[in-house]
Amino acid sequence: MPEREVDAILVSGSENRRYLSGFSGSAGYLFITGERAHLATDFRYTEQATAQAEYFNVEQVRVGWDWLLAQLRESGAKRLGFESQSMTVATYNSLNKAISEDSDLSGVLLVPFSDLTDDQRSFKDSDELVLLQRAIDASDLAMEEVCPTIAEGMTEREVAWRMEMAMRDAGADGISFDTIVAAGPNGAMAHHMPTDHIIKRGEPIVIDMGAKVGGYCSDITRTVVVGEPDEMFHKIYNIVLDAQLTAIKDVKIGMNGEEADKLARDVISDAGYGDNFGHSLGHGVGLAVHEIPRVSPRSTDPLDVNSVFTVEPGIYLSGWGGVRIEDIVILGDSGAIPLSKASK
Amino acid sequence: MPEREVDAILVSGSENRRYLSGFSGSAGYLFITGERAHLATDFRYTEQATAQAEYFNVEQVRVGWDWLLAQLRESGAKRLGFESQSMTVATYNSLNKAISEDSDLSGVLLVPFSDLTDDQRSFKDSDELVLLQRAIDASDLAMEEVCPTIAEGMTEREVAWRMEMAMRDAGADGISFDTIVAAGPNGAMAHHMPTDHIIKRGEPIVIDMGAKVGGYCSDITRTVVVGEPDEMFHKIYNIVLDAQLTAIKDVKIGMNGEEADKLARDVISDAGYGDNFGHSLGHGVGLAVHEIPRVSPRSTDPLDVNSVFTVEPGIYLSGWGGVRIEDIVILGDSGAIPLSKASK
Repeated sequence: MPEREVDAILVSGSENRRYLSGFSGSAGYLFITGERAHLATDFRYTEQATAQAEYFNVEQVRVGWDWLLAQLRESGAKRLGFESQSMTVATYNSLNKAISEDSDLSGVLLVPFSDLTDDQRSFKDSDELVLLQRAIDASDLAMEEVCPTIAEGMTEREVAWRMEMAMRDAGADGISFDTIVAAGPNGAMAHHMPTDHIIKRGEPIVIDMGAKVGGYCSDITRTVVVGEPDEMFHKIYNIVLDAQLTAIKDVKIGMNGEEADKLARDVISDAGYGDNFGHSLGHGVGLAVHEIPRVSPRSTDPLDVNSVFTVEPGIYLSGWGGVRIEDIVILGDSGAIPLSKASK
Repeated sequence: MPEREVDAILVSGSENRRYLSGFSGSAGYLFITGERAHLATDFRYTEQATAQAEYFNVEQVRVGWDWLLAQLRESGAKRLGFESQSMTVATYNSLNKAISEDSDLSGVLLVPFSDLTDDQRSFKDSDELVLLQRAIDASDLAMEEVCPTIAEGMTEREVAWRMEMAMRDAGADGISFDTIVAAGPNGAMAHHMPTDHIIKRGEPIVIDMGAKVGGYCSDITRTVVVGEPDEMFHKIYNIVLDAQLTAIKDVKIGMNGEEADKLARDVISDAGYGDNFGHSLGHGVGLAVHEIPRVSPRSTDPLDVNSVFTVEPGIYLSGWGGVRIEDIVILGDSGAIPLSKASK
């Protein structure tokens, strides 16, 4: 805290709340100073928070800021850090008003943090890796099991649902984001939601999905075909696979997000499809399915030991469809180690 | 717009984006003036947005505000309304900075809206009601099917998963929030997440869940028992049911959230359990599972024709468990009509 020049922080984002306290409920704040670790939540979560957040003093509160004003008065904190990337303008305005109307709190200043625990969260410790690997294993297993059963005549929705059932059977608590199944021309939409579109032989089918275990998210994409893939599919698939394997092979500690992104982007650009890879190469993944480090053309986020991120190049052709291949990797001293092992 | 004294609005919240444009993707902004309906989204969603948002001009954009600065310059708008309840402080700061650094845009002012479309969204039209009813029917059907199959020895997780499978089979696109199954003492936590707790005979089991159809969310709670309920359960259950039925019978057009809440709260307080009903009576439900109107002790939100909201009183006793009963109702000229019909 001293390095940020604050003497207290207010944590409002759900992932940071969980990361710092252990409390997994969907509402509440942490107020932390050098001496205090206070968790304020409402009636619905008091018992749960008390059980989960062993190092925090849990207070049951109602709507409003009375509890925080009391904490500020008692602690004497003057510079209160808050999470500017999760707090809304409306919440900020109400908090600012409450503090400014309290004559005991004159001189208390709100200090925006945009990256409160991002640095810590982007590097995973062993407890985190256990949960993350369980989430990854569940989606790997589902891919391996369900892909061979996809048949002509099934709908995108049906495939998505089979995948979700298989992830649950493989130990997932739930899904980490809405499953994407995009067959044929729908695959040109990188984030297409499953429809009643009926799968035909030879169409590329992009499947992007994730499982959640103990709060940790997996994220994997495979592109498959029912029947024999045609020449066009082979060509596009091999460019994307080459881009992905190149990035996984060459990414190194000390690179930033932009440098890592470029490893795969160059392969796709050299093959003439640079304009058809319109998204980032990847993103960090953990308690949130998208987190630091960003692995994108303008990212300066550092990649270091135990950075965990996705590597997911793609090519999208309007009218034809898309190919994307995605795995989660962890960075070690000698390079990236893929954590997902589903065949590709 | 004139009544808000703005000449353009920037829509950033996902439900409002969908409500106003039809676009169901998870990223993008709307920029709307008297003459313009512009939708900015990224590469992943351009095709989808073009297909879904028929009245909008869709632009594919990259990270940053260049597209918005161009729209502001072209439209000559001076007072730009934004959604203060969904925009984060970090986004606001970056937007404010971008505008202030553009010499062509001197005099452009950001005006916070806290309730851009809340008034409209809280009253449902017939197209919305069709989708909402399909979501409600899916969760009703799942309750009716699965509750009789719950047996001693099952875990909370297993019951939750059966419910989710049954909702899908009944036509749900997905779930509208993480399913709550809270057996025995866990039921004292109003928002308990399912665990490996094994269900015993006679324990109260609170099941709170919802389906999603076409973006619209359902939300239903039932409390059941395996085997014969004991006297305590009968007593608590009947107080909660009495409170719920009283509120549904007596809520009228022209009341506000506080007055509606009081209808049920008085019944529970008169029975001596006022302190054990620590949450609101209900909330609006539609594209978001929690929206306007709030039906809570301090809510002035108006209830009027076609207001749709939940009625969900509960009693929670630490060490014993909880009882909550919840249905969605729509307000008509002669009172509330329950939209869910699962037995209770």
